[in-house]
Order: sequence, then structure tokens, then C-alpha cells
Amino acid sequence: MTQPRSLTNARLADGRLVDIDLLDGRIAAISPATSAPEAQDRLDLCGRLLVPGFVDGHIHLDKTLLGLPFQPHRPGDSIAERIAAEKALLRHLPISVEARAHVLVAQVSRFGTIALRSHVDIDTDYGLSNLHALLSVREAVRDVMDIQIVAFPQNGILRDAGTAELLDEAVATGADLVGGLDPAGIDGDITAHLDIVFGIAERRGVGIDIHLHDPGALGCFELRDIASRTMASGLQGRVAVAHAFALGEVEPAVFGATAEALARAEVAIMTNEPGAAPMPPVGRLRDAGVLVFAGSDNIRDAWSPYGNGDMLERAMLIGYRQGMMADSDLCHTFAMATALPARALGLGTDYGLAPGARADLVALDAGSVPEAVAGRSGGRIVIKRGRVLGHR
Amino acid sequence: MTQPRSLTNARLADGRLVDIDLLDGRIAAISPATSAPEAQDRLDLCGRLLVPGFVDGHIHLDKTLLGLPFQPHRPGDSIAERIAAEKALLRHLPISVEARAHVLVAQVSRFGTIALRSHVDIDTDYGLSNLHALLSVREAVRDVMDIQIVAFPQNGILRDAGTAELLDEAVATGADLVGGLDPAGIDGDITAHLDIVFGIAERRGVGIDIHLHDPGALGCFELRDIASRTMASGLQGRVAVAHAFALGEVEPAVFGATAEALARAEVAIMTNEPGAAPMPPVGRLRDAGVLVFAGSDNIRDAWSPYGNGDMLERAMLIGYRQGMMADSDLCHTFAMATALPARALGLGTDYGLAPGARADLVALDAGSVPEAVAGRSGGRIVIKRGRVLGHR
Repeated sequence: MTQPRSLTNARLADGRLVDIDLLDGRIAAISPATSAPEAQDRLDLCGRLLVPGFVDGHIHLDKTLLGLPFQPHRPGDSIAERIAAEKALLRHLPISVEARAHVLVAQVSRFGTIALRSHVDIDTDYGLSNLHALLSVREAVRDVMDIQIVAFPQNGILRDAGTAELLDEAVATGADLVGGLDPAGIDGDITAHLDIVFGIAERRGVGIDIHLHDPGALGCFELRDIASRTMASGLQGRVAVAHAFALGEVEPAVFGATAEALARAEVAIMTNEPGAAPMPPVGRLRDAGVLVFAGSDNIRDAWSPYGNGDMLERAMLIGYRQGMMADSDLCHTFAMATALPARALGLGTDYGLAPGARADLVALDAGSVPEAVAGRSGGRIVIKRGRVLGHR
Repeated sequence: MTQPRSLTNARLADGRLVDIDLLDGRIAAISPATSAPEAQDRLDLCGRLLVPGFVDGHIHLDKTLLGLPFQPHRPGDSIAERIAAEKALLRHLPISVEARAHVLVAQVSRFGTIALRSHVDIDTDYGLSNLHALLSVREAVRDVMDIQIVAFPQNGILRDAGTAELLDEAVATGADLVGGLDPAGIDGDITAHLDIVFGIAERRGVGIDIHLHDPGALGCFELRDIASRTMASGLQGRVAVAHAFALGEVEPAVFGATAEALARAEVAIMTNEPGAAPMPPVGRLRDAGVLVFAGSDNIRDAWSPYGNGDMLERAMLIGYRQGMMADSDLCHTFAMATALPARALGLGTDYGLAPGARADLVALDAGSVPEAVAGRSGGRIVIKRGRVLGHR
């Protein structure tokens, strides 16, 4: 049975034990679990915790080296050096962008991810070729994964003349959002960089998702500029900034002013728990009203050999790094891998464990959400549009 | 077959494919893999990576809440408050120290840990009761796990009068090492605290393992004091300090002087990648000649809901936090979960993948050590004293 008509004996996050009727790939009804005689076409979850599927808010489907033998990491001291090292490596791979992206989609799906936002490199070398590859992958996996695509200027915009036009063309071709990268650190001109990014967004009517590694006061200055432009463009709720290491480095007054600007403009922040880099303070941002969501970022690629695409592990990494230990904290880190990226991606009422939502669900071998995050038990049953994709 | 006479087609860390003969629970011989007709009583590892089993350098078998339903974390602002919160929780548990310790030993064994050093709380409330419990567990699991026990004054020594005598009695009763805890931060008298700890070690002829959370310059002062006493007592190579957050907080000159003192006295440092706390810089300590090894520390206990006892995940956490990405870095973090704690625990030539060593081994679904650390593939076959304990 790959398409059950009901899920029975599911434990919800609030502790209730319920049966869930499914219809046309959506949740039709949720009712208290009954001990009625076994119905046809039901999947008995035997008390497993049932939650909405994971949403990976930041991934690079075109960068992964999965599908190849393990590749040693090639170090680079600056972001510019690492960009060059990545290009040198990817140029000579024996398998295509599509093939590698398919392996990664399959891997994250097995962990229970049902939607993701992928950046795709756009520059004057690749042109739109990586985008065309991911558009083809998106179409091929549409029953398994919802994919948003960000046109990402990995090589800069100003420093790689012609990229601005390619970004615009990428959005016209099917990318869902326009990206940016370190307006100061990579392009050396905050105003010119953001003029282009916001210009495309306004002209094409799409959202924005900007990579920002610039540190300290500089990075926070850029965040406030982004917030201000977001208000001016009426793009509230449609702009995200990834990494934003700067928020983890500045004094309280600068942090406070920046967080306030982000909250007012409804600019969301993505963090993957960045290892050795400074991390945006999740609790303080939440308390300031800023939406902070999680993503995997690099998964075995030229930037990092780490990462596996397991968003439950990602929730653990975030909570552990931030010293979040109370049940409410653990539930918050879980939301950073589920409901909060769903909101940042604009999935709306299609997402969630409620009648009418898509039946995009994961059953976990845990008694509660805090236990799932802290313990990361291995068992997963992944359900997408009402179809059981598999067990892990 | 639970006790094969040979392991065939094992991939070693250096890439060789070998067959391994086992005899009386030890490695008898290692030879290039042959395609000889299938022998009796062999376990074909089919090219899996075979490594010496994991060694958990720091665990608290008496503290875990495993075996109970998930318990919400009860916060405490200071270490003293958290000590009190732990006592309040553990006093009323429905299952014994032994039962909880057995669950934890079984869990870490499934991940491939074959030896561990456990601290056990000694104070005037518990007396030696937790020690007696762990001595009984150690005896019961001796075919599965090698256990060292540290008599640990979780409640302080000076602030809990009578503890000094109990620590001495604990060592006389069967604890392998004597512990200490924040001579400044908990007991307020560095000299008096260390006089007691080193006094017991010298009198009883045992090693020392001290918890040290004291910060910055203070913690580094204590580390240098410990190093100096280690030299004076002739205990080089038999003293470890756990956590040592201070090493991650001080200016280069203080760090350098402290690292040099630790290296000269052969005082080892244990880190578990401490989440929100400062972390000793692994690479800089290694370069200074200091042995740094890994342990799980808290595993679902009153101090933290996190932790699962998987030392391969622990190696990943350490490498990820420290930005260690090159293959050599990943191999080093792996050693921090295998050969380096084996050295800190004094396992000697019993440990390792060499003729004569105990056949305490783990087969991993990975092509190389760097891939195993970065990818943490799930499959494990755990072999202890030549017996196959199980697959995971």
C-alpha cells in the first residue's frame, strides 16, 4: 500500500492520538483514534509521532558532490578563493548537475524533507545552464519534492559583468527568486549590488534571498539597508538573508537596531548553524520578532564535506550550539526545520497538520517533539501528497 | 555466526583490502584479501571500512535518564544550581542507577563504542552507592565494554565536608581514577582542592581526571597549576582535564604558556564540543603537543537532553565546530574518538588494528575515514573480543 486512505494511531505534537483521513493527497479530516476494526487501505502508525514534513530553507542542489566518490576538501582562505576552487573542481566532474541533484533530492527525501529552496549558480561562465538542469530536476521530482529556485550570483554581480542581465533572464526563465551575495565583501558596492537585486525583484514581481557573510558592523549595516529597501519596495515577508554571521558578532545596541529593522520589514534570516563561523542568536532574534529558519546549506560539496540533509539533525545542531535545552526551546528548533521555513517559503495553508493541507508528513520513532530533536531516533516514514515514499 | 575465525574483505583506513584472522578474541594476522573459496566461520565485510572500536573518553553512566520516558530539562543558571536540580530529579526516579547505566552501555555499544571512561558521583549524600552500582554494571558487561571509573566529586570536595575521605575510599573500593571539579569555581580554594586530589592519586597510585569549567585566565591558571603538580607527582601521561573551556577564551600569550605547560606535563584535555560554551582549539592544542580526546559527556541527563553516545557523530560535531574540513582534519577528529582516547585511557597495545591487539572493531558503511566522519553513514557492525555483537 503506497497510498493509504487513512493514517491511524498517529501521535500529534500536542500528545493527542488521532486517525487522519486522506483524500486526493490532502488531509481530509483528523479525529480521535478509534479502536474500530481494521479498515482497508489504512497505515497504522502505532503511536509514532506524526509531524508536517521537513522544509529545507537553503540548499544548493547544483553544488553537491553526492553521486561521486568522496572528494577531499580543497581549502581556500577567502570566499573569492573558494569560489575559484569550486569552479576548478566542478568543471571536470564525470557526472552532470542533474545527476548529482537527483541523488541529493533522493537523500533529503528519505530524511523526510518535502519542500526545499535551492540556490542555483548564475554567472557568465555557467550562464543559465545550471538553472536549466534544476528546472528539469524540479519537473522530474514534482511528486516527491516541492522545489523553489533562487537565481544566485555565486561569482558576484558587479565583478562578473553580464551577471545582472543573466539574473534577470533566470527569473524570466523560471527561477522563483533573485539572489545576492555579500554586496560589500564580494562586489564592493552595496548600493549598486542591491539596486540590481531589488530592481529585478520589483520588475519581475519575485522575492529575494541574499547570501550575507560580511562581518560585524558592516554586515549589520547591509542588513538594515536590505530591510529599508524591502519596506520601500513593498516586499515585506518576501525577503530572506542567509547566514547573517554579523548578527552574532555585534554589540547589543547594533544588534537591537538591526533586529528591529528586520522585524519591521519582515525580512527573514536563514541559519544552518555555521560551524566555526559566528551564528545569529536564535532566541534573541525570535524575541525581537524576526523569523529565523533553518536550512542545510552545503551538503558534501566544494564548500564543505559535512552535511547530510537531515533537517532533524539540523534542528539538533542549532539547539545544541545555542544552548537551547527546555522543551519549548527544542520545539522552537523543530519549528525552524518545519513551520518557520514553510512560512519563509510562503507555503501557506498547503503546509501543516490540518484539514485541507497537503498530506506531506513524516512519522518519527519518538514520543514527543523535544525527544525527536534531542534523540534523533532513526526511524522515519515519509508521506508526500498522501503517498508513502518509504521508510528509513 | 557470532564468533568468526576471520574477517574478510575489510577496507583499512590506509585503503588496503585485507583479511584478518582472529584467535582468542585478538587479531592474529592481517593479510592482503584473497579470493580464496569461502572459508568456514568467516565474516565477509564486503569492502566495508574496518576501524578500531570507538573509545568514549568521558561519560556519566550514573546520570543518564535513558530507560525513562523523555524528561523535560530543568534549567539552572549556575553550576551549583544545576547540581541541586539534578539531585532533586534523580532522588525520585522509579528505576535504579544500574538499570539506567545498562541502557546507556547497550546504546553506546550499538554505535560501536568498545571502551569508555565513566565518572561516578561521590558525595556525602550518595556516599559510594553509585560507585557500587557501576562496579556491578562493569562486571556484568565485561564481555561487551571496557569501563574505567573516575570517583567524581560532583558536589565539590571542600564544600561537602567528608567527600575527601569518600573519594579516597572510592579508589580503595575499585574506582580507577580520582576526579576533581572546578577548584576555584566550586570549592573556592585551588590549593586545598588540588592538594586532596593529587594526595589521593599519589597515595593510591592512580590517575586523575578533573572537570574544569572555570573560565578564561582563572581556568588557565588552574590548568598550569595542575600541570605543575603533575610533574611534581610524576604523574605525566596519567592526568586529564575535561572541558577546559578556558583554553578557548584567552589571549594567545596565556594560551601558549598554558598549552606548553600541559604538553610538558603530558596532561590530556577532553572535549565533547560543548555546544554554547567556549571550546578548546583542537588544532592549536595538537600543534602545541597536547593530547586532546573526545567524549560524549551528558547523554539525556539532568544537564542536557542532547547526546546519544555516537562517537562518530561526536567526531563530526568537533570537526564541524572547529572548521576542520581537509581529509587530514577529518582523520584527526576520528582519532579523537578512537586512538587518542585509547591513549589517554592507557589501553596500550591491546587497542588498535594490529596483530596482538584485541579484536574490538567496527565496520562502517563508508569508503574512507574522512567519508565516515563527514557522512556518518548508519551501518555499523560491532565486534568485541572477536564476537559480533550486532549490526546497526
